[in-house]
Amino acid sequence: MFENILLNVSRNITLTDDEKNTFTGLLERRMVPRKTVLLRAGDICQFEAYIVKGCARIYHVDINGCEIILSFAVEDWWISDLASFHEQKPSMFFIEALEKTELLMLSPKNKQRLLHEVPKFERIFRILIERSLYTIQNRLLSTIGKSAMDRYLEFVDMYPTVPPRVPQYHIASYIGVSPEFISIIRRRLASKAPIP
Amino acid sequence: MFENILLNVSRNITLTDDEKNTFTGLLERRMVPRKTVLLRAGDICQFEAYIVKGCARIYHVDINGCEIILSFAVEDWWISDLASFHEQKPSMFFIEALEKTELLMLSPKNKQRLLHEVPKFERIFRILIERSLYTIQNRLLSTIGKSAMDRYLEFVDMYPTVPPRVPQYHIASYIGVSPEFISIIRRRLASKAPIP
Repeated sequence: MFENILLNVSRNITLTDDEKNTFTGLLERRMVPRKTVLLRAGDICQFEAYIVKGCARIYHVDINGCEIILSFAVEDWWISDLASFHEQKPSMFFIEALEKTELLMLSPKNKQRLLHEVPKFERIFRILIERSLYTIQNRLLSTIGKSAMDRYLEFVDMYPTVPPRVPQYHIASYIGVSPEFISIIRRRLASKAPIP
Repeated sequence: MFENILLNVSRNITLTDDEKNTFTGLLERRMVPRKTVLLRAGDICQFEAYIVKGCARIYHVDINGCEIILSFAVEDWWISDLASFHEQKPSMFFIEALEKTELLMLSPKNKQRLLHEVPKFERIFRILIERSLYTIQNRLLSTIGKSAMDRYLEFVDMYPTVPPRVPQYHIASYIGVSPEFISIIRRRLASKAPIP
């Protein structure tokens, strides 16, 4: 159960067997059915979750009731609203499982314990937040400066396993176009002869 | 010279006089004229800078040569490309002083020394990166889901001292509209009777 998450963290820090046990002992395993809402806007996010198996999305609902998808997460990704989690303030986001999903969740209290007992985990969580920042900076630049086609290609590059797993309207919400426009983009891409 | 930066960090951590001296001893003061480029896209960002006096912007130039302003920073703000600074990889951004600006700069090496000698600074830098993430998440949601008028009002709310200090085309670049449209928004706002 912990094999993948230990591989995930060992890309950045080296852990002794004792430290591995401390870490895994602080994780709570959850298996949730499709469409489970893990976080609701207005609530305080009480987890950083590692996805063992499954797929989730984090999204905002604006004042007109329109959904804006911030990101997807699949196997070997972490998902959370880090701003809400760290500051313990109400989230602007929903997090929803899009498939039956197995998660390993770390609560704020257990994260504090982990950092106290194994301070080298600071590095992992710093890297996670830096990557989130980096990803969202890129997304903002694409949203402002790039065409819908380029944004779609970036999406596929970033989430190669997601397109067959989620409804087209979720992809449209992420790209910021109508679902019909996603169909047009896909037809255009399909009609191009492959590069020899 | 260090009064404001010490007030800035003391909002989140308590420092002894020795710790304050360690911190300020690792800062490099720079006074730069208007239009100084502090970071160039393609270079690795070698500083986290606190603005004592002045104003700067961080921006991206897309493949068509269009500028996209990620954020402004004025007195008591920090400015850096945190992704480039932490990962020591080439930046996608330029950082430019928009006025004669006084900065206190922390290099990667001195930051490491600081964290080694005064580990409680981890908290400050974690908070800085969380705020950046939070700010940019909000900005992305506004860019996708809000009108130009709402984005302008958010900009003024976030940077109340910036509008009189920077050219209108920089504000337009931040909002994602033409400079002419900023004039239209301002005229509309000015024509509204004040709420009694």
